[in-house]
Amino acid sequence: MWAAAARRAGLALAAAAAALALAAWRRRRPPVREVLFFPSPPSCTEALLAEAAGLGTTGRPCPCPLPQGDSSLSRLLRHLLSARRSLEICLFAFSSPQLGRAVRLLHRRGVRVRVVTDAQYMGLPGSQIGLLRHAGIQVRHDQENGYMHHKFAVVDRRMLITGSLNWTTQAIQNNRENVLVVEDTQYVKPFLDEFERIWEEYNPINYRFPKTTND
Amino acid sequence: MWAAAARRAGLALAAAAAALALAAWRRRRPPVREVLFFPSPPSCTEALLAEAAGLGTTGRPCPCPLPQGDSSLSRLLRHLLSARRSLEICLFAFSSPQLGRAVRLLHRRGVRVRVVTDAQYMGLPGSQIGLLRHAGIQVRHDQENGYMHHKFAVVDRRMLITGSLNWTTQAIQNNRENVLVVEDTQYVKPFLDEFERIWEEYNPINYRFPKTTND
Repeated sequence: MWAAAARRAGLALAAAAAALALAAWRRRRPPVREVLFFPSPPSCTEALLAEAAGLGTTGRPCPCPLPQGDSSLSRLLRHLLSARRSLEICLFAFSSPQLGRAVRLLHRRGVRVRVVTDAQYMGLPGSQIGLLRHAGIQVRHDQENGYMHHKFAVVDRRMLITGSLNWTTQAIQNNRENVLVVEDTQYVKPFLDEFERIWEEYNPINYRFPKTTND
Repeated sequence: MWAAAARRAGLALAAAAAALALAAWRRRRPPVREVLFFPSPPSCTEALLAEAAGLGTTGRPCPCPLPQGDSSLSRLLRHLLSARRSLEICLFAFSSPQLGRAVRLLHRRGVRVRVVTDAQYMGLPGSQIGLLRHAGIQVRHDQENGYMHHKFAVVDRRMLITGSLNWTTQAIQNNRENVLVVEDTQYVKPFLDEFERIWEEYNPINYRFPKTTND
């Protein structure tokens, strides 16, 4: 019994040391400043998602015929999957199955995920929004005439992912698109503030429901 | 005659000194790092455009009832109008009359303007592309199934303007949008390279024309 307690304490200490080392490494390394361009040729992201889900990859290579190398989509996924504590997403259109799986995986891993989206696009066929809600992720949407046209995410309140890219397979594989991945506070902070502003404004307690004829 | 020549030489010297002072000031000042959010409430940009056209503003206030204060649109316009040598524009949709006027004005001022756009959207009612071409500005477009969905511009090869915003009145006045204005070389250079890549790829000598039944 003492041995088990000592082992648990040892494991907890090791985990704390690893977290401290990660934080120290993040402070030391230069900020991420990356530009990704699309279209990204179709590629297999199974290994990346399986590894992030803690399922490992050895011995079970994906049988699909797609190439597994580095691509703009795999780099975007990697940045997203680096989330440890929080993820804010503010997206006009979200229908990419790979990016949807990544977000649900982060939610299962205990990351606090919040999603803001456009009301007119969230119910279209292929939208990931229903699956996110079904997984227990908080989603809020606009009730405006204009579009909620942002396409950004903030990882752990330190990394901004923003650009022209909607998270759809059409955009990823066919369109000319750009995504900036940025850790400069001067850019991250205004986007975080914008997210919080929109999040509060789209609080369901503010939703207006049209009167029905039975009223 | 000598007096006229001396005056011309003096003016040329003064212009050169002003250009040098401007370049020195640009080197000294910190790089622009700004985030603009939209919608931008309707505002009058006449004074800004008249000033940039060298028409001055004194004594002729615009009679329109719109407010004239600072706005996201006026800030975007100011950054655009700061161009002195070159302007690369890569835009999915471009129908804002104010931004169209600004671009034509820069062209008239001798700035080398090049525009890349999406073929499916450039012919829609209200598009500025026809007016730009009519003014003598070079425009190239895609011939692809996917969209040319970028929304960026580069001013004088040093300032990147990019984000979710298409340059349309609908987007400016009604949508939730963002625009980053950035002078960090790490971000500007990849976008300039992307522009040159697309510019060459969309060279009209590469256009394919479908065969007609008369062929």
